[in-house]
Amino acid sequence: MTAPRPASVGMSIDEVDTPCLLVDLDAFERNVATVARFVAETGVRLRAHAKTHKSADIAAYQIEKGGAVGVCCQKVSEAEALVDGGIRDVLVSNQVVAPLKIDRLAALAKRARIIVCVDDAANVADLSAAAAKHGATIECLVEIDVGQDRCGVEPGADAVALAQKIAASPDLKFAGLQAYHGRAQHIRDYALRKAHIDFAIAATKQTLSQLYHAGIECGIVAGAGTGTFRFEGASGIYNELQCGSYVFMDADYQRVKGANGEGISDFDNALFVLTSVMSKTRPGKAVCDAGLKAQSVDSGMPVVFGRDDLRYVKCSDEHGVIEDPGNTLKLNDKLKLVPGHCDPTVNLYDWYVAVRGGRVEAVWPVTARGRVA
Amino acid sequence: MTAPRPASVGMSIDEVDTPCLLVDLDAFERNVATVARFVAETGVRLRAHAKTHKSADIAAYQIEKGGAVGVCCQKVSEAEALVDGGIRDVLVSNQVVAPLKIDRLAALAKRARIIVCVDDAANVADLSAAAAKHGATIECLVEIDVGQDRCGVEPGADAVALAQKIAASPDLKFAGLQAYHGRAQHIRDYALRKAHIDFAIAATKQTLSQLYHAGIECGIVAGAGTGTFRFEGASGIYNELQCGSYVFMDADYQRVKGANGEGISDFDNALFVLTSVMSKTRPGKAVCDAGLKAQSVDSGMPVVFGRDDLRYVKCSDEHGVIEDPGNTLKLNDKLKLVPGHCDPTVNLYDWYVAVRGGRVEAVWPVTARGRVA
Repeated sequence: MTAPRPASVGMSIDEVDTPCLLVDLDAFERNVATVARFVAETGVRLRAHAKTHKSADIAAYQIEKGGAVGVCCQKVSEAEALVDGGIRDVLVSNQVVAPLKIDRLAALAKRARIIVCVDDAANVADLSAAAAKHGATIECLVEIDVGQDRCGVEPGADAVALAQKIAASPDLKFAGLQAYHGRAQHIRDYALRKAHIDFAIAATKQTLSQLYHAGIECGIVAGAGTGTFRFEGASGIYNELQCGSYVFMDADYQRVKGANGEGISDFDNALFVLTSVMSKTRPGKAVCDAGLKAQSVDSGMPVVFGRDDLRYVKCSDEHGVIEDPGNTLKLNDKLKLVPGHCDPTVNLYDWYVAVRGGRVEAVWPVTARGRVA
Repeated sequence: MTAPRPASVGMSIDEVDTPCLLVDLDAFERNVATVARFVAETGVRLRAHAKTHKSADIAAYQIEKGGAVGVCCQKVSEAEALVDGGIRDVLVSNQVVAPLKIDRLAALAKRARIIVCVDDAANVADLSAAAAKHGATIECLVEIDVGQDRCGVEPGADAVALAQKIAASPDLKFAGLQAYHGRAQHIRDYALRKAHIDFAIAATKQTLSQLYHAGIECGIVAGAGTGTFRFEGASGIYNELQCGSYVFMDADYQRVKGANGEGISDFDNALFVLTSVMSKTRPGKAVCDAGLKAQSVDSGMPVVFGRDDLRYVKCSDEHGVIEDPGNTLKLNDKLKLVPGHCDPTVNLYDWYVAVRGGRVEAVWPVTARGRVA
């Protein structure tokens, strides 16, 4: 069910079939370098989140050139695709509780370093049994709830009890804490966002202290995303950052403000949905070929890049309606849309078309596209 | 980039990997039969819309058992996948204007009956040249805007002029009118929905009259979807219906009301996202493994099928938060989610798991998954 490649190397951007996923390589490389500099300066590790890009090529680039020690992903099937693609250090930053999935995770731990998050005592026993069956070691992070209100045990005593259970389990290794505050990432206001992460830092610090007093060493203290990583990175508490969206940026992240009301972006838009005008029968409007199957609108409509005069106003299954008050658009004109939300948009495509200076430089597979299980 | 099959034939539903796309075969077959009966009774044709299911297997079933004369789809790449899958009569119910796509469409017209919609005079010339190059005939419908306010020319004189241009073009055939009112399909109120379609019927009738006086025969008068097909089917004006969602139903269509305030559904929910509980650390809440990459939330959150006590309240990339006031859920419990919107949800998956009586009866590929170009 793989779609045909929308481009080939050397092609001009004007010849690329639409809609497709476009990566601006200059912007992408700048974004990767920005976080690489930050982790080099602060001495924390970067474990880049591959749920954003689902690409073994991009993961390899982040490890080779972007200061990453490995990657995160969210699903066992994603981890399998990344390991198949050559990645050798993968944290599934999520719970894995289904028997079939646990078995596959343990099998994978024979081929790569595999870390997984845990928030349930019975799950620890299941993971241990599967690791033993496969002769593998699975590393476990205890996930604590630092404000996300979703998965994870309470910070403090509950976390310590779970860590002790892991440490006592054959073929498992207690590797540390997962303390990710996802809900904080997209909070627009700087002070409010910082306050949420201050809480997460305090809760994590308190749990670390209790682990220390229980005689349990905590190698990894992990969390942070593109919206907050500078807080966690400077905390002296977190030592592994899990930023993902920074490679691409999206329209929603650009609404997140820095300390002085500016955008958080030292990051540039590096990901676009390339679309074409496919109907133009009304004054002041054009219809493009990228709708709901070409981008996710859960975080709002896409923004037309570099065209403040145009507004993408309506998204149906296969169409986008663009307001064009100046009647500038004509059939087959190409536009670059900045997706409202990168991650679920990427998951719709089989291919990245990577361009530099208007030319296609590479066509990368979206290695883990559709790996939701 | 095809994901592994989540099930195999004969398996119990309890063993199926999640999240995955589930088809209840009994409900699906009832839905197909309901529309087959309607078109048999009214004498109109059904050209089922394959943009809903993107499946050559389901399209073939609709043609063999469901009274359909052929299918619609929205993109050239979808049409290619369906023709590759054995379907021989395909309407691309959309404009095809990019040179590369026109060339592919003309090549496809050597292998199957291909019909396409047109709303631009220059496009007619391009289609004609491509058909000549490939030695093919492309059939064209003039799309008129009957209230959708998106693609299409004005009803009346503009449509006649375009029809004349098509009729005069070598290697093209003027096949009729496309008069689909998409915006009307999901209007909740019966009288308002009917008023919109009454307008569409009147505008179509007037255009047909002008075509008749211009001496142009109009073979196909096409439109209608699951929300309105009974109006167009009884109009005496439309002769080809393009319903798609009826095979599956979705949560949004179930909010559309009939004449007496009841649901429009003689249709049953036949499509589900099967999900599992993967974290349960809070009273009154559970977290499932189906998030934004497992379903589209553009038309609202999914509904938990058969469980009025549960509410899916929050959808993030890989997680769904479910309110469970009775604390009934435990890890690995499976739930059937009715997607808010079928079409973009189906497009996320490579496989349908077709079940009857709790057993997997077939695993169908989503033939045209990701075919957005």
